[in-house]
Amino acid sequence: MKITIERGALLKSLNHVQSVVERRNTIPILSNVLIKAEDGQLSLTATDLDIEVVEAIDADVAQPGATTASAHTLYDIVRKLPEGAQVELSTGADEGRLQLTAGRSRFALQSLPQEDFPVMAAGSLPHRFELPAEAMRRLIDKTRFAISMEETRYYLNGIYFHAVDGPKQKSLRAVATDGHRLAQVDHDLPEGAAGMPGVIVPRKTVLELQKLLEGNSGALSVGVSETKIRFEFGGIVLTSKLIDGTFPDYGRVIPVGNDKMLQVDGKRFAEAVDRVSTISTEKSRAVKLNIEEGKLTLSVTNPDSGSATEELSVSYSSPAIEIGFNARYLLDITGQLDGAEASFAFADSGSPTLVRDSEDSMAVYVLMPMRV
Amino acid sequence: MKITIERGALLKSLNHVQSVVERRNTIPILSNVLIKAEDGQLSLTATDLDIEVVEAIDADVAQPGATTASAHTLYDIVRKLPEGAQVELSTGADEGRLQLTAGRSRFALQSLPQEDFPVMAAGSLPHRFELPAEAMRRLIDKTRFAISMEETRYYLNGIYFHAVDGPKQKSLRAVATDGHRLAQVDHDLPEGAAGMPGVIVPRKTVLELQKLLEGNSGALSVGVSETKIRFEFGGIVLTSKLIDGTFPDYGRVIPVGNDKMLQVDGKRFAEAVDRVSTISTEKSRAVKLNIEEGKLTLSVTNPDSGSATEELSVSYSSPAIEIGFNARYLLDITGQLDGAEASFAFADSGSPTLVRDSEDSMAVYVLMPMRV
Repeated sequence: MKITIERGALLKSLNHVQSVVERRNTIPILSNVLIKAEDGQLSLTATDLDIEVVEAIDADVAQPGATTASAHTLYDIVRKLPEGAQVELSTGADEGRLQLTAGRSRFALQSLPQEDFPVMAAGSLPHRFELPAEAMRRLIDKTRFAISMEETRYYLNGIYFHAVDGPKQKSLRAVATDGHRLAQVDHDLPEGAAGMPGVIVPRKTVLELQKLLEGNSGALSVGVSETKIRFEFGGIVLTSKLIDGTFPDYGRVIPVGNDKMLQVDGKRFAEAVDRVSTISTEKSRAVKLNIEEGKLTLSVTNPDSGSATEELSVSYSSPAIEIGFNARYLLDITGQLDGAEASFAFADSGSPTLVRDSEDSMAVYVLMPMRV
Repeated sequence: MKITIERGALLKSLNHVQSVVERRNTIPILSNVLIKAEDGQLSLTATDLDIEVVEAIDADVAQPGATTASAHTLYDIVRKLPEGAQVELSTGADEGRLQLTAGRSRFALQSLPQEDFPVMAAGSLPHRFELPAEAMRRLIDKTRFAISMEETRYYLNGIYFHAVDGPKQKSLRAVATDGHRLAQVDHDLPEGAAGMPGVIVPRKTVLELQKLLEGNSGALSVGVSETKIRFEFGGIVLTSKLIDGTFPDYGRVIPVGNDKMLQVDGKRFAEAVDRVSTISTEKSRAVKLNIEEGKLTLSVTNPDSGSATEELSVSYSSPAIEIGFNARYLLDITGQLDGAEASFAFADSGSPTLVRDSEDSMAVYVLMPMRV
């Protein structure tokens, strides 16, 4: 193998693929990136056995071939090379070494045989559809905060994507919940997605995809089977295993009869929640909302540090209600709102509350109250 | 006590003083800031019993008085208040509480009696001198990297300030060393510093002073005794205990007969060291320098990851030499250089090496070699 490539292009692709490589690996080859050169293209592959990222870029291929080398080391070296440098990668007389030359810098990196590099067999992906990259970004951005961190509830450790294909509504829906809050965001159902199975995409895959989609505005092609999902866009192919579990029947959690409606300026509300929660205990983070006609009073009392209250003018005309929430959860949700106004729908102080974005009818949030 | 003050002014001062307060304290009042209002001024004091920072700012004092409240909580609250807000601080009917009001936000913070707040008695500070704030910043910036982290060698856990008052040289000198490298930086001896004792200023004091001096260009007034040092500037008074120990006779470490002179572009040298050290082991970080006429070759060999070499054109005409250094230490020193060129003076591969800045004759660095 012998190729020449501009440092910036190589760095960008290495940055994309190395991110999936874990810092510590018991299987040495999982620390490596697979480097393949043929037909004027360099392809880089990295995997953690659950996710595989492949990126192909144009390169000047003098001699085709393949090898593997440490993904993080290679990335660090290329990052430190001067801008605009021409980088030569070759496997030469010295088998088991990848030679990297740029200007007056020369590196010989330990490599492992490309034959040993694990290939992820995606199998057949019978369900295929396309959607704009921004649409997928939005589905992830607005739901990922609610993904559960509890490893014992492994079926909540991802975003549940599925097709809602009823007579009234047709959409591709993303749902995440940790049992305390739930986020549900819809996008118009893409052609070909109607029959797809509901799939739980793991947190790490979601985060990698989110990073890869940054600044990407083209079309994203998605392939789904019962056990795998594949995303293709801009020369990148990300294939991931799915979480093998059943996502709970989340529809039962979403209240339908909440009739006490509150409209509040989202930014002011978030700032006030942030301020009063300064003195809440690290553990409970509880904030109390007293809502009466036209006025919301936020308050926190902590025997160790003191008390805080703040008033906000709001639109509310139902009977007065007092309800408590975790400040962190309130801020997570208000952080997702695009519109100026947040709409709350309460039932009573012990029941789940609905939150909506005044300018995004496709997103719904559910928040469990706390006793305060 | 009752005062009103603009949020920005209060935030700036709280930021200054709260930095010295430790996150965890076994003595509760050490988490607090002492707040005193009198004569149109608000004074804030924080201490960790080793360092005390006092800052006085103008405020609208309606009723003089004093109290204490959690420094970090108060800082966080003021930080989250909207820009331009008028903040009212008062101790009212409810003893043991500090009331903070701004707009429609109201906080009542637990306070502890001001009488319990520890006051640091500076005693007499017989040696007094002034120097520009930038001069002190330079003395700290160029030496602090060499301060030892080893707690057992407590007498190296700070910067040694002393007056060099010989017939040939008169300067205020800052020295720091961890046994592997040494930094010595001089400033013209200020009037009044001639008879001062040599003092070891602890790392934390140095870091706090560095932060406080940021953006400060006025004069800094220094008072020194055998056990304390005090810095005064721009309304701030920082008083600190000194390290009670004897700084080693560092002059013996600075080689005088090194005659193999190397001149190298500092930036290029640092970039090359950074690149080749990418593949060094985390533990040793060793880089080998092969120096011959006009050429420097940097190299690293790591059995686990591979090898790296890089050549640089240099000015060198002494007999060839091969010498090893810790890459981190080389980068720390080259990071301090203002001039374009770094000057190395070698004796042999086993002896300490001198490094100088081509444009700063007042700074000298000594670096111990490593076996490679």
